[in-house]
Amino acid sequence: MAKEAKQEFVQHITPRNENFSQWYTDVVTQAELMDYTPVRGCMAMKPYGNRIWELIHEHLDAMFKETGHENVSMPMLIPESLLLKEAEHVEGFAPEVAWVTQGGVEPLQERLAVRPTSETIFCTMFAKWVHSWRDLPMKYNQWCSVMRWEKTTRPFLRTAEFWWQEGHTVHATPEESEEETQLMLNVYKTFCENKLAIPVYAGRKSDKEKFAGAQATYSVEAMMQDGKALQAGTSHNFGTNFSVPFNIQYLSKDGRLEYCHETSWGCSTRLIGAIIMTHGDERGLKLPPAIAPFQTVVLPIAAHKGGVIEKCTEVVEALRSDGIRVKFDDRDNVSPGWKFNEWELKGVPLRLEIGPKDIEKGQVTAVRRDTFEKTTLPLDDQLPAAVNKMLGDIQENMFRIALAFREAHTKDVSGMDELKSQVDGGYARAMWCGDRACEDRIKEETGATSRNMPFDQTPIGDKCVCCGKKADRVMYFAKAY
Amino acid sequence: MAKEAKQEFVQHITPRNENFSQWYTDVVTQAELMDYTPVRGCMAMKPYGNRIWELIHEHLDAMFKETGHENVSMPMLIPESLLLKEAEHVEGFAPEVAWVTQGGVEPLQERLAVRPTSETIFCTMFAKWVHSWRDLPMKYNQWCSVMRWEKTTRPFLRTAEFWWQEGHTVHATPEESEEETQLMLNVYKTFCENKLAIPVYAGRKSDKEKFAGAQATYSVEAMMQDGKALQAGTSHNFGTNFSVPFNIQYLSKDGRLEYCHETSWGCSTRLIGAIIMTHGDERGLKLPPAIAPFQTVVLPIAAHKGGVIEKCTEVVEALRSDGIRVKFDDRDNVSPGWKFNEWELKGVPLRLEIGPKDIEKGQVTAVRRDTFEKTTLPLDDQLPAAVNKMLGDIQENMFRIALAFREAHTKDVSGMDELKSQVDGGYARAMWCGDRACEDRIKEETGATSRNMPFDQTPIGDKCVCCGKKADRVMYFAKAY
Repeated sequence: MAKEAKQEFVQHITPRNENFSQWYTDVVTQAELMDYTPVRGCMAMKPYGNRIWELIHEHLDAMFKETGHENVSMPMLIPESLLLKEAEHVEGFAPEVAWVTQGGVEPLQERLAVRPTSETIFCTMFAKWVHSWRDLPMKYNQWCSVMRWEKTTRPFLRTAEFWWQEGHTVHATPEESEEETQLMLNVYKTFCENKLAIPVYAGRKSDKEKFAGAQATYSVEAMMQDGKALQAGTSHNFGTNFSVPFNIQYLSKDGRLEYCHETSWGCSTRLIGAIIMTHGDERGLKLPPAIAPFQTVVLPIAAHKGGVIEKCTEVVEALRSDGIRVKFDDRDNVSPGWKFNEWELKGVPLRLEIGPKDIEKGQVTAVRRDTFEKTTLPLDDQLPAAVNKMLGDIQENMFRIALAFREAHTKDVSGMDELKSQVDGGYARAMWCGDRACEDRIKEETGATSRNMPFDQTPIGDKCVCCGKKADRVMYFAKAY
Repeated sequence: MAKEAKQEFVQHITPRNENFSQWYTDVVTQAELMDYTPVRGCMAMKPYGNRIWELIHEHLDAMFKETGHENVSMPMLIPESLLLKEAEHVEGFAPEVAWVTQGGVEPLQERLAVRPTSETIFCTMFAKWVHSWRDLPMKYNQWCSVMRWEKTTRPFLRTAEFWWQEGHTVHATPEESEEETQLMLNVYKTFCENKLAIPVYAGRKSDKEKFAGAQATYSVEAMMQDGKALQAGTSHNFGTNFSVPFNIQYLSKDGRLEYCHETSWGCSTRLIGAIIMTHGDERGLKLPPAIAPFQTVVLPIAAHKGGVIEKCTEVVEALRSDGIRVKFDDRDNVSPGWKFNEWELKGVPLRLEIGPKDIEKGQVTAVRRDTFEKTTLPLDDQLPAAVNKMLGDIQENMFRIALAFREAHTKDVSGMDELKSQVDGGYARAMWCGDRACEDRIKEETGATSRNMPFDQTPIGDKCVCCGKKADRVMYFAKAY
């Protein structure tokens, strides 16, 4: 049977430097994160990929609740008339909406959009729910999937349907909505860095790149191993852009009707794509312990020898009751070597091997996925603590490596040639005059887009990288997913 | 301010015995569980209602995982051709499907159904994923919302969009699929009784009432306070009904291609309707502690007096760190009496009052929502344990009361007149010959439908309640939601 399974399993993963895009596809499918479906542009998340999303959900949801947000669930269909209320918004989203036109046997009088995002239905409900200053702030979030009829799709990175969370909040003043926008941007930054081990640049989007209908959009931008940017989360301040057309007003303390100030913010299953492309290697996926479905896998060596399975079972139970997510791979139809490959491909952070010799010496053999370093840990009461410590080290080391990569692939540039060559495999930091025309030209000539303007705007020059005119903005440029 | 808030808040709840249906609507809206939306038949779950669903999700998901299931996420749109593959299934669901016919600016070549349920897409993927007996069983579940274009809708009980979980599993043998079907039926029964404090009748549906495409459907049926039945969960054994048209085959140990045996099972946000109508009273909602967003509310009495707020804060923190879901209501713009009403309406199981006299006596005053019994608990280190004990008592007592109500409103009947009068306010247990004609006549003459056949089939007679011919089946009949 070992042979049969082997034939199914060991497939070639394209080397990253040969074809990064093919490498990505190989990893996504061979690690069994998702599968293609007969529904155009829509994927199925398999248990392993879905579990990563569940863990992302768990961590982020706790952070949302700690910062005073509550979850709600809104309808997935939105009447066309609502979508039309905010002009920029409809222009941005209408071309990629899937429309329901028939309900049961009868054609609908009004088309219903499968939500591409939910600002318009949230705003409709907020207009009903907000009355006085005492109702504010109203800070809601929902976990759901949304649909955008994309022309070309790629697993996790761009799919017609994707899973996400979308926060929608209402405030009394512009100061409060700006504070919320920054707060949630910072939640995303903290989450990406501490849980996904992905360093991100946080900053403000240009007008060209901001969300359709927003006053200001902020983003966190990650760097993939091919040097391209991936927008990992966005946070929008709408000001009164939606509250005016949707008539969301509140009675202030001194008895006046005032328009509310709103925000929205979201991140999606594309984070899974970011994890793969930030950390993965020739052997496959490499998962940060905080969101790994299995943080450690326990493998019996010479399992037929007396006491091995029993000892493994003990260890598994001890780790599990300490809260560690552990997989016990006791399959008897594949070899240990086969299992090594499989769990490396699936990115499990730590492998624990237990054989007769280990038991004799009172140890387990530990192999780290991040460094392939092989050590031994004492097989005693302190094992769960030692494993937790090692998982912590792996989490930190993965961040350190990703950060070093990003720093090595970010460069200040002052002219178009330099910019063009830099964005071939990294981020360019440059001065920009603020003109849309320069952004467009940069895109045309280099393929890079403006990513965001960092909060630290210490100038690195005074001329626009493109037109050479006076410039006072620092902007990151990169090719992007 | 107290007055202003009071005017908004204290609304009349219609008495249950005057108009049960209106009482239900009053409770649903005034307890802020949901709101109506401009989308036909679709509701918005507000934070309080959504949180109940989150807690249901949490408990059930843990039970699914303990029984070996993994979560996946499937596309929300299903091509029409897939829906057409199983004849009975399409006949059952086609009349209530919402159809996507337009994607972006182009009309679609094939209509896509907004999933009314996901058997057809799961089966399509199973055909791809199942190869050999080693892949089996495959036990998956997904949490999502589905859409059924219903003519008349009621919050939680019947909405066009509703939130649910749907389990889909694949097995090698008919014995295993039957075992799974029963296992999950039992999970639902245990969950309803232990967590929702709702006693249920578990049994098998008649052919008329079974799921479109199933070989056998089992259900758990609850009794509402108006004596009507509410189907709280269903579990279906498909046999090979889907695996044949979808061609889901596996290579057996002895090398033969065999069709798989499948199941599906689900429960939905209508459970929230069941909670309301099983436990609620004239003052509003009454939540079982296991799924109450707030298990206890702490109210300061004479909050302006020195030390009251401090003591309340201490208590709140002690309860919270013991894992109790606690709300600290320190609003200063409404009176304690006002707060009593509000938290009773919202069904919080236990109210803790702390005032200067309580502090002096080293006690907190505890008022149970289920009995309105007022006692005192010592204000010491043991308070969290005492509160937990009381929450446990409330949970048990709520189940006991609901069970007593159900027993008092279930009766064995042997003729049509008796049946008709019994189903006016309860369940009738009767002998049934098994003929569809009798089911139809019973429905026509009494308004009741067959609910299910209990596993204990000890006969209570030998003649069909309807036609008087020989009968060997025991069946529950009731009017149903």
